[in-house]
Amino acid sequence: MKVRISGLATIGDIQPGDELGPRIREAADREGHAIGADSIVVVAQKIVSKAEGAIVDLRTIDPSALAKTWAAHWGRDPRLVELVFRQARRIVRMDQGVLIAETRHGLVMANAGVDHSNVAGEDFATVLPDDPGRSACALRTDLQCGAVIVSDTAGRPWREGLVNLAIGISGMEPLEDLRGSTDCAGKQLYGTVVAQCDEIAAAAGLVMPKAGGIPVALIEGYKWKRAEGGLQSMLRPPERDLFR
Amino acid sequence: MKVRISGLATIGDIQPGDELGPRIREAADREGHAIGADSIVVVAQKIVSKAEGAIVDLRTIDPSALAKTWAAHWGRDPRLVELVFRQARRIVRMDQGVLIAETRHGLVMANAGVDHSNVAGEDFATVLPDDPGRSACALRTDLQCGAVIVSDTAGRPWREGLVNLAIGISGMEPLEDLRGSTDCAGKQLYGTVVAQCDEIAAAAGLVMPKAGGIPVALIEGYKWKRAEGGLQSMLRPPERDLFR
Repeated sequence: MKVRISGLATIGDIQPGDELGPRIREAADREGHAIGADSIVVVAQKIVSKAEGAIVDLRTIDPSALAKTWAAHWGRDPRLVELVFRQARRIVRMDQGVLIAETRHGLVMANAGVDHSNVAGEDFATVLPDDPGRSACALRTDLQCGAVIVSDTAGRPWREGLVNLAIGISGMEPLEDLRGSTDCAGKQLYGTVVAQCDEIAAAAGLVMPKAGGIPVALIEGYKWKRAEGGLQSMLRPPERDLFR
Repeated sequence: MKVRISGLATIGDIQPGDELGPRIREAADREGHAIGADSIVVVAQKIVSKAEGAIVDLRTIDPSALAKTWAAHWGRDPRLVELVFRQARRIVRMDQGVLIAETRHGLVMANAGVDHSNVAGEDFATVLPDDPGRSACALRTDLQCGAVIVSDTAGRPWREGLVNLAIGISGMEPLEDLRGSTDCAGKQLYGTVVAQCDEIAAAAGLVMPKAGGIPVALIEGYKWKRAEGGLQSMLRPPERDLFR
Protein backbone atom coordinates (compact mmCIF):
# COMPACT_ATOMS: atom_id res chain seq x y z
CA MET A 1 0.00 0.00 0.00
CA LYS A 2 1.41 3.39 -1.00
CA VAL A 3 0.13 6.85 -0.17
CA ARG A 4 1.54 10.05 -1.64
CA ILE A 5 1.14 13.46 -0.04
CA SER A 6 1.89 16.58 -2.08
CA GLY A 7 1.72 20.16 -0.96
CA LEU A 8 0.52 22.90 -3.32
CA ALA A 9 2.92 25.81 -2.99
CA THR A 10 1.64 28.28 -5.59
CA ILE A 11 -1.84 29.09 -4.33
CA GLY A 12 -0.72 32.48 -3.11
CA ASP A 13 -2.44 34.82 -0.71
CA ILE A 14 -6.20 34.42 -0.30
CA GLN A 15 -8.53 37.40 0.17
CA PRO A 16 -12.18 37.52 1.24
CA GLY A 17 -14.34 36.62 -1.75
CA ASP A 18 -11.66 34.62 -3.56
CA GLU A 19 -12.91 31.39 -5.11
CA LEU A 20 -10.83 28.62 -3.57
CA GLY A 21 -11.82 25.88 -6.02
CA PRO A 22 -10.37 27.52 -9.14
CA ARG A 23 -7.30 28.69 -7.21
CA ILE A 24 -6.59 25.13 -6.05
CA ARG A 25 -7.18 23.66 -9.51
CA GLU A 26 -4.90 26.22 -11.14
CA ALA A 27 -2.14 25.58 -8.61
CA ALA A 28 -2.47 21.83 -9.09
CA ASP A 29 -2.25 22.24 -12.89
CA ARG A 30 0.78 24.51 -12.58
CA GLU A 31 2.52 22.04 -10.26
CA GLY A 32 1.73 19.01 -12.40
CA HIS A 33 -0.91 17.35 -10.24
CA ALA A 34 -4.17 15.87 -11.51
CA ILE A 35 -7.01 16.10 -9.01
CA GLY A 36 -9.47 13.28 -9.62
CA ALA A 37 -12.10 11.01 -8.10
CA ASP A 38 -9.44 9.16 -6.08
CA SER A 39 -7.82 12.30 -4.68
CA ILE A 40 -8.39 13.64 -1.20
CA VAL A 41 -7.81 17.38 -0.96
CA VAL A 42 -6.88 18.73 2.47
CA VAL A 43 -7.34 22.48 2.85
CA ALA A 44 -6.11 24.54 5.78
CA GLN A 45 -8.87 26.23 7.76
CA LYS A 46 -6.98 29.49 7.49
CA ILE A 47 -7.54 29.95 3.75
CA VAL A 48 -11.12 28.70 3.94
CA SER A 49 -11.83 31.28 6.64
CA LYS A 50 -10.08 34.01 4.65
CA ALA A 51 -11.94 33.20 1.44
CA GLU A 52 -15.26 33.17 3.31
CA GLY A 53 -14.45 36.42 5.05
CA ALA A 54 -14.34 34.81 8.50
CA ILE A 55 -11.92 37.50 9.62
CA VAL A 56 -12.62 39.74 12.57
CA ASP A 57 -11.36 43.30 13.00
CA LEU A 58 -10.36 43.29 16.66
CA ARG A 59 -10.92 47.06 16.87
CA THR A 60 -14.66 46.38 16.66
CA ILE A 61 -14.57 44.24 19.80
CA ASP A 62 -15.40 45.61 23.22
CA PRO A 63 -13.98 43.13 25.74
CA SER A 64 -16.06 42.10 28.75
CA ALA A 65 -14.78 42.47 32.29
CA LEU A 66 -13.93 38.76 32.40
CA ALA A 67 -11.95 38.98 29.17
CA LYS A 68 -10.06 42.02 30.47
CA THR A 69 -9.20 40.39 33.81
CA TRP A 70 -8.04 37.16 32.25
CA ALA A 71 -6.06 38.91 29.53
CA ALA A 72 -4.35 41.21 32.03
CA HIS A 73 -3.44 38.29 34.28
CA TRP A 74 -1.91 36.22 31.49
CA GLY A 75 -0.55 38.96 29.25
CA ARG A 76 -3.02 38.40 26.40
CA ASP A 77 -4.89 40.74 24.08
CA PRO A 78 -8.31 41.25 25.77
CA ARG A 79 -9.96 41.64 22.35
CA LEU A 80 -8.73 38.18 21.33
CA VAL A 81 -9.95 36.69 24.62
CA GLU A 82 -13.37 38.26 24.09
CA LEU A 83 -13.46 36.90 20.54
CA VAL A 84 -12.74 33.40 21.91
CA PHE A 85 -15.68 33.76 24.32
CA ARG A 86 -17.94 34.79 21.44
CA GLN A 87 -16.88 31.78 19.37
CA ALA A 88 -17.48 29.36 22.25
CA ARG A 89 -20.59 27.62 23.47
CA ARG A 90 -18.79 26.13 26.50
CA ILE A 91 -15.46 26.73 28.21
CA VAL A 92 -13.78 23.37 28.83
CA ARG A 93 -10.68 24.66 30.62
CA MET A 94 -9.51 28.16 31.47
CA ASP A 95 -6.25 27.97 33.34
CA GLN A 96 -2.54 28.77 33.03
CA GLY A 97 -3.24 31.22 30.23
CA VAL A 98 -4.83 28.46 28.17
CA LEU A 99 -8.42 28.70 27.00
CA ILE A 100 -9.94 25.49 25.70
CA ALA A 101 -13.46 25.83 24.42
CA GLU A 102 -16.17 23.94 22.59
CA THR A 103 -17.30 25.77 19.47
CA ARG A 104 -20.85 25.89 18.17
CA HIS A 105 -19.80 23.11 15.75
CA GLY A 106 -19.03 20.84 18.72
CA LEU A 107 -15.27 21.02 18.18
CA VAL A 108 -13.13 21.28 21.32
CA MET A 109 -10.09 23.44 20.57
CA ALA A 110 -7.72 25.91 22.16
CA ASN A 111 -9.07 29.44 21.67
CA ALA A 112 -12.20 28.03 20.02
CA GLY A 113 -10.27 28.08 16.74
CA VAL A 114 -9.54 31.82 16.84
CA ASP A 115 -6.17 32.37 15.16
CA HIS A 116 -4.00 35.43 15.01
CA SER A 117 -1.21 34.03 12.80
CA ASN A 118 -0.94 34.13 9.00
CA VAL A 119 -3.43 36.96 8.72
CA ALA A 120 -2.24 40.46 7.84
CA GLY A 121 -2.26 43.14 10.52
CA GLU A 122 -2.05 43.03 14.31
CA ASP A 123 -5.73 43.99 14.50
CA PHE A 124 -7.11 40.99 12.63
CA ALA A 125 -7.79 37.37 13.53
CA THR A 126 -9.53 34.53 11.75
CA VAL A 127 -12.36 32.50 13.22
CA LEU A 128 -13.49 29.04 12.08
CA PRO A 129 -15.65 28.87 8.94
CA ASP A 130 -19.35 29.13 9.59
CA ASP A 131 -19.86 25.47 8.64
CA PRO A 132 -16.59 23.72 7.71
CA GLY A 133 -18.49 20.67 6.45
CA ARG A 134 -20.43 22.83 4.02
CA SER A 135 -17.20 24.51 2.92
CA ALA A 136 -15.68 21.06 2.31
CA CYS A 137 -18.74 19.95 0.36
CA ALA A 138 -18.71 23.01 -1.89
CA LEU A 139 -15.02 22.53 -2.62
CA ARG A 140 -15.54 18.86 -3.43
CA THR A 141 -18.24 19.74 -5.95
CA ASP A 142 -16.00 22.41 -7.43
CA LEU A 143 -12.90 20.23 -7.66
CA GLN A 144 -14.72 17.00 -8.62
CA CYS A 145 -12.42 15.14 -6.26
CA GLY A 146 -13.09 12.14 -4.04
CA ALA A 147 -13.09 13.88 -0.69
CA VAL A 148 -12.22 17.18 0.93
CA ILE A 149 -11.00 17.74 4.48
CA VAL A 150 -10.85 21.19 6.02
CA SER A 151 -8.08 20.92 8.60
CA ASP A 152 -6.78 22.90 11.53
CA THR A 153 -3.94 22.41 13.97
CA ALA A 154 -4.83 21.56 17.54
CA GLY A 155 -3.12 20.78 20.80
CA ARG A 156 -3.88 17.66 22.81
CA PRO A 157 -4.04 16.75 26.50
CA TRP A 158 -0.92 15.04 27.90
CA ARG A 159 1.30 15.73 24.87
CA GLU A 160 3.04 18.88 23.78
CA GLY A 161 2.82 20.08 20.20
CA LEU A 162 0.09 20.61 17.67
CA VAL A 163 -1.19 18.12 15.14
CA ASN A 164 -3.31 18.77 12.10
CA LEU A 165 -6.85 17.37 12.35
CA ALA A 166 -10.15 17.47 10.49
CA ILE A 167 -12.73 20.14 11.34
CA GLY A 168 -14.94 19.59 8.29
CA ILE A 169 -15.18 16.77 5.76
CA SER A 170 -17.02 15.80 2.63
CA GLY A 171 -16.96 12.54 0.68
CA MET A 172 -15.78 10.17 3.39
CA GLU A 173 -16.68 8.47 6.62
CA PRO A 174 -14.81 10.23 9.41
CA LEU A 175 -14.31 6.90 11.17
CA GLU A 176 -13.26 3.59 9.69
CA ASP A 177 -15.28 1.16 11.75
CA LEU A 178 -13.63 -2.22 12.13
CA ARG A 179 -15.87 -3.56 14.88
CA GLY A 180 -17.09 -7.04 14.04
CA SER A 181 -14.16 -7.80 11.76
CA THR A 182 -11.30 -10.05 12.87
CA ASP A 183 -7.59 -9.44 13.22
CA CYS A 184 -4.73 -11.51 11.78
CA ALA A 185 -4.86 -13.82 14.80
CA GLY A 186 -8.58 -14.45 14.21
CA LYS A 187 -9.78 -12.40 17.21
CA GLN A 188 -12.72 -10.04 16.97
CA LEU A 189 -11.67 -6.38 16.85
CA TYR A 190 -14.18 -5.21 19.45
CA GLY A 191 -13.31 -1.59 20.04
CA THR A 192 -11.44 -0.69 16.91
CA VAL A 193 -12.66 2.43 15.19
CA VAL A 194 -10.00 4.39 13.36
CA ALA A 195 -10.20 8.16 12.98
CA GLN A 196 -9.15 8.05 9.37
CA CYS A 197 -9.98 11.68 8.60
CA ASP A 198 -7.66 12.81 11.39
CA GLU A 199 -4.87 10.50 10.25
CA ILE A 200 -5.22 11.96 6.75
CA ALA A 201 -5.23 15.52 8.10
CA ALA A 202 -2.12 14.77 10.18
CA ALA A 203 -0.40 13.27 7.13
CA ALA A 204 -1.24 16.44 5.18
CA GLY A 205 0.30 18.43 8.04
CA LEU A 206 3.69 17.00 7.05
CA VAL A 207 3.66 19.07 3.86
CA MET A 208 1.83 22.13 5.26
CA PRO A 209 4.37 24.14 7.24
CA LYS A 210 2.79 26.07 10.10
CA ALA A 211 4.51 29.26 8.95
CA GLY A 212 2.16 29.17 5.95
CA GLY A 213 2.77 29.10 2.20
CA ILE A 214 1.40 25.58 1.53
CA PRO A 215 -2.25 25.61 2.60
CA VAL A 216 -3.41 22.65 0.49
CA ALA A 217 -2.26 19.03 0.31
CA LEU A 218 -3.28 16.28 -2.09
CA ILE A 219 -3.48 12.71 -0.86
CA GLU A 220 -3.24 10.00 -3.50
CA GLY A 221 -3.31 6.24 -3.17
CA TYR A 222 -5.47 5.99 -0.07
CA LYS A 223 -8.59 3.82 -0.28
CA TRP A 224 -11.45 4.96 1.88
CA LYS A 225 -15.13 4.38 2.48
CA ARG A 226 -17.08 7.06 0.65
CA ALA A 227 -19.95 8.76 2.42
CA GLU A 228 -21.98 11.92 2.24
CA GLY A 229 -22.24 12.69 5.94
CA GLY A 230 -20.04 15.09 7.88
CA LEU A 231 -17.86 14.92 10.96
CA GLN A 232 -20.71 14.49 13.44
CA SER A 233 -20.24 10.80 14.24
CA MET A 234 -16.67 11.57 15.28
CA LEU A 235 -17.56 14.17 17.89
CA ARG A 236 -17.93 12.27 21.16
CA PRO A 237 -21.27 12.93 22.84
CA PRO A 238 -21.02 14.61 26.28
CA GLU A 239 -22.36 11.59 28.13
CA ARG A 240 -19.50 9.44 26.84
CA ASP A 241 -16.78 12.07 27.30
CA LEU A 242 -14.54 11.62 30.34
CA PHE A 243 -12.74 14.94 29.79
CA ARG A 244 -15.51 17.49 29.82
CA MET B 1 6.99 19.13 -1.03
CA LYS B 2 6.18 15.46 -1.48
CA VAL B 3 6.04 12.70 1.09
CA ARG B 4 5.60 9.03 0.25
CA ILE B 5 4.31 6.44 2.70
CA SER B 6 4.73 2.76 1.93
CA GLY B 7 3.60 -0.19 3.99
CA LEU B 8 5.68 -3.36 4.20
CA ALA B 9 3.34 -6.29 3.75
CA THR B 10 5.69 -9.28 3.78
CA ILE B 11 7.21 -9.13 7.25
CA GLY B 12 5.10 -12.03 8.42
CA ASP B 13 4.36 -13.16 11.94
CA ILE B 14 6.82 -12.13 14.64
CA GLN B 15 7.74 -14.42 17.53
CA PRO B 16 9.61 -13.65 20.77
CA GLY B 17 13.33 -13.52 20.03
CA ASP B 18 12.93 -12.65 16.35
CA GLU B 19 15.34 -9.98 15.09
CA LEU B 20 13.18 -7.17 13.74
CA GLY B 21 15.95 -5.30 11.90
CA PRO B 22 16.81 -8.08 9.44
CA ARG B 23 13.12 -8.95 9.00
CA ILE B 24 12.32 -5.36 8.04
CA ARG B 25 15.33 -5.08 5.72
CA GLU B 26 14.45 -8.33 3.97
CA ALA B 27 10.83 -7.27 3.50
CA ALA B 28 11.93 -3.89 2.13
CA ASP B 29 14.31 -5.58 -0.33
CA ARG B 30 11.61 -8.01 -1.42
CA GLU B 31 9.12 -5.19 -1.94
CA GLY B 32 11.58 -2.98 -3.82
CA HIS B 33 12.23 -0.32 -1.17
CA ALA B 34 15.64 1.06 -0.27
CA ILE B 35 15.91 2.10 3.38
CA GLY B 36 18.50 4.86 3.72
CA ALA B 37 19.63 7.86 5.73
CA ASP B 38 16.61 9.89 4.59
CA SER B 39 14.06 7.21 5.44
CA ILE B 40 11.90 7.22 8.53
CA VAL B 41 10.80 3.74 9.57
CA VAL B 42 7.59 3.51 11.60
CA VAL B 43 7.14 0.21 13.43
CA ALA B 44 3.95 -0.88 15.18
CA GLN B 45 4.35 -1.41 18.92
CA LYS B 46 2.73 -4.80 18.55
CA ILE B 47 5.62 -6.40 16.66
CA VAL B 48 8.24 -4.69 18.82
CA SER B 49 6.52 -6.07 21.91
CA LYS B 50 6.25 -9.52 20.36
CA ALA B 51 9.91 -9.60 19.29
CA GLU B 52 10.99 -8.48 22.75
CA GLY B 53 8.77 -11.02 24.43
CA ALA B 54 6.55 -8.37 26.04
CA ILE B 55 3.68 -10.85 26.01
CA VAL B 56 1.84 -11.83 29.15
CA ASP B 57 0.15 -15.18 29.78
CA LEU B 58 -3.07 -14.08 31.45
CA ARG B 59 -3.33 -17.44 33.25
CA THR B 60 -0.42 -16.35 35.45
CA ILE B 61 -2.34 -13.30 36.69
CA ASP B 62 -4.28 -13.32 39.94
CA PRO B 63 -6.67 -10.35 39.76
CA SER B 64 -7.10 -8.08 42.77
CA ALA B 65 -10.50 -7.42 44.31
CA LEU B 66 -10.66 -4.04 42.54
CA ALA B 67 -9.89 -5.62 39.17
CA LYS B 68 -12.54 -8.27 39.74
CA THR B 69 -15.23 -5.77 40.76
CA TRP B 70 -14.54 -3.43 37.88
CA ALA B 71 -14.34 -6.26 35.35
CA ALA B 72 -17.60 -7.80 36.58
CA HIS B 73 -19.38 -4.45 36.43
CA TRP B 74 -18.29 -3.67 32.87
CA GLY B 75 -18.09 -7.17 31.39
CA ARG B 76 -14.32 -7.27 31.06
CA ASP B 77 -11.72 -9.97 31.64
CA PRO B 78 -10.49 -9.40 35.24
CA ARG B 79 -7.04 -10.68 34.30
CA LEU B 80 -6.72 -7.98 31.62
CA VAL B 81 -7.89 -5.30 34.07
CA GLU B 82 -5.31 -6.45 36.61
CA LEU B 83 -2.62 -6.37 33.92
CA VAL B 84 -3.57 -2.77 33.13
CA PHE B 85 -3.18 -1.88 36.81
CA ARG B 86 0.25 -3.46 36.85
CA GLN B 87 1.34 -1.52 33.77
CA ALA B 88 0.15 1.79 35.22
CA ARG B 89 1.76 4.24 37.55
CA ARG B 90 -1.36 6.40 37.77
CA ILE B 91 -5.02 5.95 36.81
CA VAL B 92 -6.16 9.06 34.92
CA ARG B 93 -9.80 8.02 34.41
CA MET B 94 -11.71 4.90 35.33
CA ASP B 95 -15.29 5.24 34.25
CA GLN B 96 -17.85 3.87 31.77
CA GLY B 97 -15.76 0.74 31.27
CA VAL B 98 -12.83 2.85 30.09
CA LEU B 99 -9.48 2.72 31.89
CA ILE B 100 -7.06 5.49 31.00
CA ALA B 101 -3.72 5.24 32.69
CA GLU B 102 -0.27 6.74 32.72
CA THR B 103 2.43 4.15 32.10
CA ARG B 104 5.84 4.10 33.73
CA HIS B 105 7.13 5.72 30.50
CA GLY B 106 4.88 8.75 31.13
CA LEU B 107 2.52 7.86 28.27
CA VAL B 108 -1.20 8.37 28.92
CA MET B 109 -3.17 5.69 27.08
CA ALA B 110 -6.29 3.58 27.31
CA ASN B 111 -5.50 0.33 29.13
CA ALA B 112 -1.91 1.53 29.72
CA GLY B 113 -1.05 0.10 26.31
CA VAL B 114 -2.19 -3.45 27.13
CA ASP B 115 -3.51 -5.01 23.93
CA HIS B 116 -5.39 -8.22 23.37
CA SER B 117 -5.68 -8.06 19.57
CA ASN B 118 -3.29 -9.46 16.98
CA VAL B 119 -1.70 -11.85 19.44
CA ALA B 120 -2.45 -15.56 19.24
CA GLY B 121 -4.64 -17.15 21.90
CA GLU B 122 -7.36 -15.81 24.17
CA ASP B 123 -5.00 -16.12 27.12
CA PHE B 124 -2.32 -13.76 25.84
CA ALA B 125 -1.94 -10.00 25.66
CA THR B 126 0.93 -7.71 24.75
CA VAL B 127 2.23 -4.90 26.94
CA LEU B 128 4.30 -1.92 25.80
CA PRO B 129 8.01 -2.52 25.20
CA ASP B 130 10.18 -2.02 28.25
CA ASP B 131 11.72 1.14 26.75
CA PRO B 132 10.25 1.99 23.31
CA GLY B 133 12.91 4.68 22.77
CA ARG B 134 15.66 2.12 23.27
CA SER B 135 13.85 -0.27 20.90
CA ALA B 136 13.69 2.52 18.29
CA CYS B 137 17.36 3.33 18.75
CA ALA B 138 18.44 -0.28 18.33
CA LEU B 139 16.38 -0.60 15.17
CA ARG B 140 17.82 2.60 13.75
CA THR B 141 21.36 1.32 14.27
CA ASP B 142 20.40 -1.98 12.69
CA LEU B 143 18.64 -0.47 9.68
CA GLN B 144 21.04 2.47 9.20
CA CYS B 145 18.03 4.69 8.52
CA GLY B 146 17.41 8.33 9.42
CA ALA B 147 14.88 7.84 12.16
CA VAL B 148 12.69 5.18 13.73
CA ILE B 149 9.32 5.68 15.39
CA VAL B 150 7.66 2.96 17.44
CA SER B 151 3.95 3.72 17.11
CA ASP B 152 0.74 2.68 18.81
CA THR B 153 -2.89 3.57 18.27
CA ALA B 154 -4.59 5.68 20.89
CA GLY B 155 -7.94 7.27 21.57
CA ARG B 156 -8.33 10.96 22.34
CA PRO B 157 -10.61 13.07 24.51
CA TRP B 158 -13.56 14.70 22.69
CA ARG B 159 -13.18 12.71 19.46
CA GLU B 160 -14.12 9.16 18.62
CA GLY B 161 -11.68 6.88 16.88
CA LEU B 162 -8.07 5.92 17.29
CA VAL B 163 -5.06 7.56 15.69
CA ASN B 164 -1.55 6.24 15.40
CA LEU B 165 1.00 8.12 17.51
CA ALA B 166 4.63 7.85 18.60
CA ILE B 167 5.52 6.00 21.81
CA GLY B 168 9.26 5.80 21.16
CA ILE B 169 11.56 7.60 18.74
CA SER B 170 15.16 7.71 17.65
CA GLY B 171 16.90 10.09 15.26
CA MET B 172 14.53 13.03 15.39
CA GLU B 173 13.22 15.85 17.55
CA PRO B 174 9.70 14.88 18.64
CA LEU B 175 8.60 18.51 18.30
CA GLU B 176 9.33 20.94 15.52
CA ASP B 177 9.71 24.17 17.43
CA LEU B 178 8.75 27.23 15.38
CA ARG B 179 8.66 29.72 18.24
CA GLY B 180 10.61 32.81 17.35
CA SER B 181 10.17 32.33 13.61
CA THR B 182 7.70 34.41 11.63
CA ASP B 183 4.70 33.45 9.53
CA CYS B 184 3.93 34.48 5.95
CA ALA B 185 2.29 37.66 7.21
CA GLY B 186 5.44 38.58 9.16
CA LYS B 187 3.96 37.87 12.60
CA GLN B 188 5.92 35.99 15.25
CA LEU B 189 4.73 32.40 15.71
CA TYR B 190 4.56 32.52 19.50
CA GLY B 191 3.01 29.26 20.50
CA THR B 192 3.68 27.11 17.50
CA VAL B 193 5.30 23.80 18.27
CA VAL B 194 4.38 20.98 15.93
CA ALA B 195 4.25 17.37 17.11
CA GLN B 196 5.98 16.11 14.01
CA CYS B 197 6.61 12.60 15.31
CA ASP B 198 2.87 12.16 15.92
CA GLU B 199 1.99 13.53 12.46
CA ILE B 200 4.43 11.03 10.95
CA ALA B 201 3.02 8.18 13.03
CA ALA B 202 -0.53 9.14 11.98
CA ALA B 203 0.53 9.27 8.33
CA ALA B 204 2.02 5.78 8.72
CA GLY B 205 -1.30 4.68 10.19
CA LEU B 206 -2.86 5.20 6.74
CA VAL B 207 -0.94 2.19 5.41
CA MET B 208 -1.03 0.07 8.58
CA PRO B 209 -4.47 -1.51 8.81
CA LYS B 210 -5.57 -2.10 12.39
CA ALA B 211 -6.46 -5.70 11.56
CA GLY B 212 -2.72 -6.30 11.18
CA GLY B 213 -0.57 -7.57 8.31
CA ILE B 214 1.35 -4.35 7.63
CA PRO B 215 3.22 -3.51 10.82
CA VAL B 216 5.91 -1.29 9.26
CA ALA B 217 5.73 1.85 7.14
CA LEU B 218 8.48 3.74 5.36
CA ILE B 219 8.28 7.52 5.08
CA GLU B 220 10.30 9.11 2.31
CA GLY B 221 10.66 12.74 1.28
CA TYR B 222 10.10 14.33 4.69
CA LYS B 223 12.80 16.71 5.95
CA TRP B 224 13.21 16.77 9.69
CA LYS B 225 15.52 18.03 12.39
CA ARG B 226 17.77 15.18 13.46
CA ALA B 227 18.37 14.61 17.14
CA GLU B 228 19.51 11.87 19.48
CA GLY B 229 17.05 12.45 22.33
CA GLY B 230 13.82 10.58 22.87
CA LEU B 231 10.17 11.46 23.33
CA GLN B 232 10.58 13.09 26.74
CA SER B 233 10.21 16.73 25.67
CA MET B 234 6.83 15.87 24.17
CA LEU B 235 5.32 14.45 27.34
CA ARG B 236 3.61 17.38 29.06
CA PRO B 237 4.75 17.81 32.67
CA PRO B 238 1.98 17.37 35.28
CA GLU B 239 2.11 21.01 36.37
CA ARG B 240 1.24 22.15 32.84
CA ASP B 241 -1.38 19.48 32.18
CA LEU B 242 -5.01 20.61 32.46
CA PHE B 243 -6.40 17.10 31.98
CA ARG B 244 -4.76 15.11 34.77
